[in-house]
Amino acid sequence: MQTLRFEIEAVCPQTGARAGRLHTAHGIVETPVFMPVGTQGTVKGLPQRDLISDLDARIILGNTYHLFLRPGPQLIEKFGGLHGFMQWPRAILTDSGGFQVWSLSQLRKVTAEGVVFRSHLNGDQHLFTPESVVDVQLSLGSDIQMALDECVEYPAGHERAKASMDLTVRWARRAFEHYRERMKSREPRHTLFPIVQGSMYEDLRRRCAGELLALEAEGYAIGGLSVGEPRTLSLEMTELVTGLLPKDHPRYVMGVGQPEELPEYVAQGVDMMDCVMPTRNARNGCLFTTQGKVLIKQARYRDDPRPLDENCVCYTCRTFSRAYLRHLFTAGEILFSTLATLHNLAHYLDIMRQMRKAILFGSFPEFLRAIRSRPAVAE
Amino acid sequence: MQTLRFEIEAVCPQTGARAGRLHTAHGIVETPVFMPVGTQGTVKGLPQRDLISDLDARIILGNTYHLFLRPGPQLIEKFGGLHGFMQWPRAILTDSGGFQVWSLSQLRKVTAEGVVFRSHLNGDQHLFTPESVVDVQLSLGSDIQMALDECVEYPAGHERAKASMDLTVRWARRAFEHYRERMKSREPRHTLFPIVQGSMYEDLRRRCAGELLALEAEGYAIGGLSVGEPRTLSLEMTELVTGLLPKDHPRYVMGVGQPEELPEYVAQGVDMMDCVMPTRNARNGCLFTTQGKVLIKQARYRDDPRPLDENCVCYTCRTFSRAYLRHLFTAGEILFSTLATLHNLAHYLDIMRQMRKAILFGSFPEFLRAIRSRPAVAE
Repeated sequence: MQTLRFEIEAVCPQTGARAGRLHTAHGIVETPVFMPVGTQGTVKGLPQRDLISDLDARIILGNTYHLFLRPGPQLIEKFGGLHGFMQWPRAILTDSGGFQVWSLSQLRKVTAEGVVFRSHLNGDQHLFTPESVVDVQLSLGSDIQMALDECVEYPAGHERAKASMDLTVRWARRAFEHYRERMKSREPRHTLFPIVQGSMYEDLRRRCAGELLALEAEGYAIGGLSVGEPRTLSLEMTELVTGLLPKDHPRYVMGVGQPEELPEYVAQGVDMMDCVMPTRNARNGCLFTTQGKVLIKQARYRDDPRPLDENCVCYTCRTFSRAYLRHLFTAGEILFSTLATLHNLAHYLDIMRQMRKAILFGSFPEFLRAIRSRPAVAE
Repeated sequence: MQTLRFEIEAVCPQTGARAGRLHTAHGIVETPVFMPVGTQGTVKGLPQRDLISDLDARIILGNTYHLFLRPGPQLIEKFGGLHGFMQWPRAILTDSGGFQVWSLSQLRKVTAEGVVFRSHLNGDQHLFTPESVVDVQLSLGSDIQMALDECVEYPAGHERAKASMDLTVRWARRAFEHYRERMKSREPRHTLFPIVQGSMYEDLRRRCAGELLALEAEGYAIGGLSVGEPRTLSLEMTELVTGLLPKDHPRYVMGVGQPEELPEYVAQGVDMMDCVMPTRNARNGCLFTTQGKVLIKQARYRDDPRPLDENCVCYTCRTFSRAYLRHLFTAGEILFSTLATLHNLAHYLDIMRQMRKAILFGSFPEFLRAIRSRPAVAE
């Protein structure tokens, strides 16, 4: 039974970067793809129609942990899943909740069975098991689910990292067994990805990837990165793991990255990424442009009549001056969040589209060089 | 020199309600009109393009007090006035700042010269005079300016109200003298309205209107309402004053009102209104519908699949369920403010358009009866 067809259109011979198409039950996703994060059933600050008509986002990410706590999977299922609840007609990937339990919740206790944690909202106690997290994501109706994993802090000792990786593998097996059982009575509209863990240890990453390959999943995620390690190490681990994963399946690196890092991951053969950075930084006044970062609160932008990014054609850049954006930011206006989020996501998705085009046209190495020479901070 | 042409298209013979067209330098405004409030150079929560394409708002209001303090009239003038700064191509009315000095600033001191006040942002001391406020509004480039007035609290004694009204009249004369002097060297693109004050005293309102008529303004505002008095009294004062104002000029009642009150004012011959209620209440989860108010946080809406208002065709009502809106509100999501503001303003502007149509078609009394029989709170 095939749920997620992945069609590879081109591979860069020098780097291994790939351009492809993911065929989901909610449309085609062109890869490499960056998925805007819609934590609580909304990409913070942006109406769904703008995600479609301004950004042409083909897939967004939802957070299982957040949606489980509020409004709850039963309610969302009643509305036809997250697609119906938030009226998003395109593809949705949901994470497993493992990362949020690790980073947000209080008093979590990991056992062989699963993870007991207290809600960061009201302190209520809950249990996530590999099986329950599959069920929650089936209620959400995600096109792409993630298997429950355990994240470890950075740095972690080898023993701790190995125990955690072993647990993640056992949980992934249970998740797949449960998922396949559940899918016997459902339309093939939901696929499940396991997550390769192993901290920054080559032997653990190799072992984890090897064990998970036996699950014959339709795609694989690389987790446990962006937890505080140096960027070179994240890229090294990514290179290692992508080399172990099947060539014909999509590879998803979770939680990355800065705009200039996106091509570095793609150069390692990564097809999918997500990160809160474009949306969260937008709300905090950190804007990404082709000329580098703009911290809009700076006095230098007070009477700057230029668009945020002269090379960007988003609504924000087509319409408003830096001075107006700075005014909205300093006045604490909601419109700032909307305009800034729209731009930062446009910037990310533009990079992805340019990258894809470069891979298809055989000019990805040149693209990579051009991105590497961009200034960090705008004039 | 005529700046603002007001063309009356129809008058309701039973009530005196009027339908007309205000010809401004930034387009035609069909009346009766409700003006969304854009305090700090943005209608809170809504992008300018949505105000145009979703709502077809023809005129918005800016607050002179807020814009004077931040980002300041010099900066805004450099950007071609508020129209250029916020990229709003349609008409703008700015208030005089008198109401905000009265309601927001600390340590204000009113003298014959003007009003000295401290900024609510940083405590800096400033002086507003009738002349300076005209200059500020010319820097803002407002299509319709307001003359500096003094607001009095409710209830106010007759002596206090009279002194304040006399001051408002003297300030209006100075404002007009200065405005006419300044306009000798400018294109006729900005008009100035004086504000009828006089608290809730018939003799003071009569006297004030009489004195201000001598200024031969192109329109007149009625101020000092919505300051805590009973609604019947506001309407009584409005009826009194509209009866004294010239029939061929627009009449603007400042700071009103609830949706069901709008037709009551129009029935008194009012052409223009503004209020923060649709936008502020939206952000606080109070939504106006044709079936009455919806307080979206209520548990009854938790799994309500219906649109907010089945009779509304705004993006919010076309697309989302009450359950989703409630989720966004309880989760504190920015998108709630945007969707709620869009709907509440759509509701207000729909009422205005329906009213205008009823006046043009001779069915305004029936419209008034229908509005009066609407429930206060939605099922």
